[in-house]
Amino acid sequence: MRAAMAAAEVDDDVLGADPTARRFEAEMAALMGKEAALFVPSGTMANLVSVLVHCDVRGSEVILGDNSHIHIYENGGISTIGGVHPRTVANNPDGTMDVDRIVAAIRNPGGELLYPTTRLICLENTHANCGGKCLSVEYTDKVGEIAKSHGLKLHIDGARIFNASVALGVPVDRLVKAADSVSVCISKGLGAPVGSVIVGSKAFIHKAKILRKALGGGMRQIGVLCAAAHLAVRDNVGKLADDHRRAKALAEGLKKIKQFKVDSASVETNMVFFDIMDPRISPDKLCQILEQRNVLTMKASSKSIRFVLHYQISDSDVQHALTCVEKAVEELLKGSTKFEHLTNGTTKSSYGH
Amino acid sequence: MRAAMAAAEVDDDVLGADPTARRFEAEMAALMGKEAALFVPSGTMANLVSVLVHCDVRGSEVILGDNSHIHIYENGGISTIGGVHPRTVANNPDGTMDVDRIVAAIRNPGGELLYPTTRLICLENTHANCGGKCLSVEYTDKVGEIAKSHGLKLHIDGARIFNASVALGVPVDRLVKAADSVSVCISKGLGAPVGSVIVGSKAFIHKAKILRKALGGGMRQIGVLCAAAHLAVRDNVGKLADDHRRAKALAEGLKKIKQFKVDSASVETNMVFFDIMDPRISPDKLCQILEQRNVLTMKASSKSIRFVLHYQISDSDVQHALTCVEKAVEELLKGSTKFEHLTNGTTKSSYGH
Amino acid sequence: MRAAMAAAEVDDDVLGADPTARRFEAEMAALMGKEAALFVPSGTMANLVSVLVHCDVRGSEVILGDNSHIHIYENGGISTIGGVHPRTVANNPDGTMDVDRIVAAIRNPGGELLYPTTRLICLENTHANCGGKCLSVEYTDKVGEIAKSHGLKLHIDGARIFNASVALGVPVDRLVKAADSVSVCISKGLGAPVGSVIVGSKAFIHKAKILRKALGGGMRQIGVLCAAAHLAVRDNVGKLADDHRRAKALAEGLKKIKQFKVDSASVETNMVFFDIMDPRISPDKLCQILEQRNVLTMKASSKSIRFVLHYQISDSDVQHALTCVEKAVEELLKGSTKFEHLTNGTTKSSYGH
Amino acid sequence: MRAAMAAAEVDDDVLGADPTARRFEAEMAALMGKEAALFVPSGTMANLVSVLVHCDVRGSEVILGDNSHIHIYENGGISTIGGVHPRTVANNPDGTMDVDRIVAAIRNPGGELLYPTTRLICLENTHANCGGKCLSVEYTDKVGEIAKSHGLKLHIDGARIFNASVALGVPVDRLVKAADSVSVCISKGLGAPVGSVIVGSKAFIHKAKILRKALGGGMRQIGVLCAAAHLAVRDNVGKLADDHRRAKALAEGLKKIKQFKVDSASVETNMVFFDIMDPRISPDKLCQILEQRNVLTMKASSKSIRFVLHYQISDSDVQHALTCVEKAVEELLKGSTKFEHLTNGTTKSSYGH
Repeated sequence: MRAAMAAAEVDDDVLGADPTARRFEAEMAALMGKEAALFVPSGTMANLVSVLVHCDVRGSEVILGDNSHIHIYENGGISTIGGVHPRTVANNPDGTMDVDRIVAAIRNPGGELLYPTTRLICLENTHANCGGKCLSVEYTDKVGEIAKSHGLKLHIDGARIFNASVALGVPVDRLVKAADSVSVCISKGLGAPVGSVIVGSKAFIHKAKILRKALGGGMRQIGVLCAAAHLAVRDNVGKLADDHRRAKALAEGLKKIKQFKVDSASVETNMVFFDIMDPRISPDKLCQILEQRNVLTMKASSKSIRFVLHYQISDSDVQHALTCVEKAVEELLKGSTKFEHLTNGTTKSSYGH
Repeated sequence: MRAAMAAAEVDDDVLGADPTARRFEAEMAALMGKEAALFVPSGTMANLVSVLVHCDVRGSEVILGDNSHIHIYENGGISTIGGVHPRTVANNPDGTMDVDRIVAAIRNPGGELLYPTTRLICLENTHANCGGKCLSVEYTDKVGEIAKSHGLKLHIDGARIFNASVALGVPVDRLVKAADSVSVCISKGLGAPVGSVIVGSKAFIHKAKILRKALGGGMRQIGVLCAAAHLAVRDNVGKLADDHRRAKALAEGLKKIKQFKVDSASVETNMVFFDIMDPRISPDKLCQILEQRNVLTMKASSKSIRFVLHYQISDSDVQHALTCVEKAVEELLKGSTKFEHLTNGTTKSSYGH
Repeated sequence: MRAAMAAAEVDDDVLGADPTARRFEAEMAALMGKEAALFVPSGTMANLVSVLVHCDVRGSEVILGDNSHIHIYENGGISTIGGVHPRTVANNPDGTMDVDRIVAAIRNPGGELLYPTTRLICLENTHANCGGKCLSVEYTDKVGEIAKSHGLKLHIDGARIFNASVALGVPVDRLVKAADSVSVCISKGLGAPVGSVIVGSKAFIHKAKILRKALGGGMRQIGVLCAAAHLAVRDNVGKLADDHRRAKALAEGLKKIKQFKVDSASVETNMVFFDIMDPRISPDKLCQILEQRNVLTMKASSKSIRFVLHYQISDSDVQHALTCVEKAVEELLKGSTKFEHLTNGTTKSSYGH
Repeated sequence: MRAAMAAAEVDDDVLGADPTARRFEAEMAALMGKEAALFVPSGTMANLVSVLVHCDVRGSEVILGDNSHIHIYENGGISTIGGVHPRTVANNPDGTMDVDRIVAAIRNPGGELLYPTTRLICLENTHANCGGKCLSVEYTDKVGEIAKSHGLKLHIDGARIFNASVALGVPVDRLVKAADSVSVCISKGLGAPVGSVIVGSKAFIHKAKILRKALGGGMRQIGVLCAAAHLAVRDNVGKLADDHRRAKALAEGLKKIKQFKVDSASVETNMVFFDIMDPRISPDKLCQILEQRNVLTMKASSKSIRFVLHYQISDSDVQHALTCVEKAVEELLKGSTKFEHLTNGTTKSSYGH
């Protein structure tokens, strides 16, 4: 990947002239079944640009999950940067929002004085805060129909859409067929150093390009990044099934630790969440000990921890991680606060989204 | 009230020179137990200015009820006009939000990259969408403590704060003691033609005045409006207890209609909601028939209707309204679609907030 | 006017039900030659709503005079509230902007990446900071043509459009024929206590009404204000010619004071500006002394002062004002700092716009 | 540079963990004489973040040149994205704004109702639209004093600040000493593929980092970009003097073409503007012909063209470009419209900022 970056043919993308970027964007558009694509610096910008383009008229409202990444983790940017009003609908544990609640939340078509105007529905697939669960193609199509019949747009935060596609066994273009736009992350599970991609109609991408420039996401010789992104998509999508298998194995392993509660059946993709049932084990402390062994995790709530798998984490890394967790639990139960530095540990579980 | 408006001493309030406005604002500040007050054209501006002054730094978030007036009815203005991110917490049927959920929703103090910064909590008292329920002084104080201990501000949407004060038997200044700002509506139950008031510290009101100007709410000889507002507060607060008694009577009357479900115990102030349990009775049609008899109601959901009482609605008006409802129900059950024009009806129940 | 306010027939304008408001808005629409009209609390809101409705898509730019009221005095609200980018063009001393400079400032039609999109041109007639100068119907038509041919809208800040109409001898509807929207102030020279009006197409006013609500400018029984506004327009437009004549007389009188420089030929309407050529006369002090004699003026720059005439200022008031100015100049030259309180003075020149 | 990118040590910069980024930011902070630095994807984001951090309170105004890059080319983002009101002051031909005009434009310290609050002054050095002119250290210091004495911040759009430093013979940290923040472009004259840097106080950079995340400019393994940026700064600053010398030579050459007007004395850095005095030579056509010879230029106005030099353009490239220009002029004068494809041309003059 580094070699490809070093060898990439480049030009000024601000002028639309970078050939590697052009090729990569064309590939992504084709792969996702949309007319056009745009490379952006981050998943946050991918979602921000998408929401703002669909909601480009002052007084717009977006319907989205109350536990969605856009609502919780992206700085409230759709409001604080874009002036879009979020109307949240409760996320079910599987990442869906009830369809009738979505319909009930739609407002305004045509001039109620008191309301903003709903212009967009957002889904997230896989859903990070719901354990990496997949939204089915049937559910996605159904929400797409609702959007269409109400004159709304549908955006999918598809940061991990390839994970969903692989786990569901549904081609990615089919999975997002109902969407007017999709954001796809190249830098998380797929392993490119930088970047996300937005796909949609030509008209949508035209507006997205202008907004990307306004936000400061227009960059120059991005061929160096797109060369890596190209390889990430070409070579690493095929490895996701292994990540999912390893995540399952990790969950099964964690389940055996009696102080934990893990619903391994709910592990659909590359995320594993477990609850700590013993008050003597502080999640903060556990994360800290694991980090010293180079096992990176993230505290997900006051009593739960999240692992994320990616292709650079092997089967033996998973075993190593499990061993580290077991030892750490033992230490914490013994009240041992001795933090040893294990320099031979190499397992890394990246922070996420 | 009209005579007082005609006789009001006025000057240019944009220059801060209108003596009637100055006096009224001073009265309101004293009554509410705050340093200063500001007259604004509407309840929407009162809340908008309050939220935006507390959240005057880009990247701010406000915690508020998912069923609150600010979130549902005010055009999403805090986001679409002010760029403030709303973080909703579920409203309980009594208008409160669970205290621990409020605490869990607070974010950021000091620089998490991914989050907006919580700067404000909003309560609504009485709570319109929760049937005009009152928030107790204990609850309000508790939320005030949470706000204070987290460095946040507390705003009360007190459009009907006098109703709450009267129903609870708590002086209004005591009831809002924990709040940094309160918006009070003079034009609803209190009967002035136009206006709301914001109260808070001098520094808050100073900023509010600048923002009111920016929004276009700075008006000139507002003494004509403040003269009416003064009388509304002086003369009509004392009549609210009667509104509450009549609301109770109305609820009891509606309860006797077997197609309706009314929780008369939940009628705490001047609002009455009832559910229609018979599918043959369409709320839209019922509202329409009642309007023809000059009984104004508002459809509150797909199967419920709302009445609001005010001091110009007498005991006999309530009886008249009940008679009209009974007749309308009979007609609807009979399938009679004849809409008669009763010109002698005078009962009016205003639309609300 | 107060009697009319006291007697006004009213209802809830938030519901669109106030008959006096409906009538007044219909009158104004007819008078201005536009389809529809909307009463708003202030001139600032009139302009803010107009600009924001025309520029309702994110990324909009407005071309306006660098010395215009919207740019200088309205809190930068079109940007700070509305996110509209102002592109200023130099105002000539007569209030116009050079037509070729306007054309050169137009940007974007169709997708230049680097630019916001021009959507609106604003004129101001009469132009406050240019001495109350009138824009001719020919100039206005010309700018209207430019706007049209570039797919832009034209808004006229017509706070004093009746002054322009009277001074030019052109019917007001003809004068604003080229405009897509006009804001008209009822509370300045016309003498109503509160309010401005926006006029435009039905579609424009429909959007304006929603934005007025979002900004908090939707008020309830505004018949009390519209009754006054109706009389102000009916009775006081005819008196503007006298204001202009008196302004001329005031200018001629000021010209005789040898420490002043007054271009009386440039006094076209009800404003008089004069420069102070003697460094011993501080404008601040002169304004202060005059205020003590109830002659209200406004310092316009570090060495100039502004008078504004209105129908409550009589010929003898003008003479009284001139006498006060002469005496004040004498005192200031003598170094006399004795500020007497003249309680019999009644001349008032309002602060303006 | 590509090799360095391929070999760069990286980690997740969203977590603040990328070592190459940390080192490069530390180097830039030291070089510019500020406490801290932040890598951002583009010059537009560098300026947007800087202006918005200084103007983080709603109702802020920035004073900047009417011909500045921020005002003209950055999509009006400070308003359309950030709600900041721009107050322009005329740029003199040398890129400065008159100091007394800056002072006259400052508004509000402390509560005038009608005005936004000035919080920032922006300079641009070198000034693109003023021919790449340098602002002297004395001028910069003077504006810095004004800012300080009025409680304002000073931001320098230093996209080409190294060009100014080299041309003036003033160390870059001294040149920007008076500034609270500086944006520096690494991807233009310095030749890195992507990126700009903001420098300022720790508190400023802390806020800038949060805003960068909100805007979507937080990227992951940016070491690959920072490795290139590091080399660009280390190796290419020293080559700027040659660019300036070659620009001078180019200007002298263009001056000999009698249809052109070039003020070669005004060529201070790496930009050359020339006016076309013969109406038969269309700038559009001339640019087009030159592009076919791989000589890239930009039309700067209806009758002028801009060249920009950078280190990959050699002395002989300049001679080649001159030859191409001469031939193109001849062809255009002859009315020859034959556009030949010269495949051996290699001179490139990049487009811009």
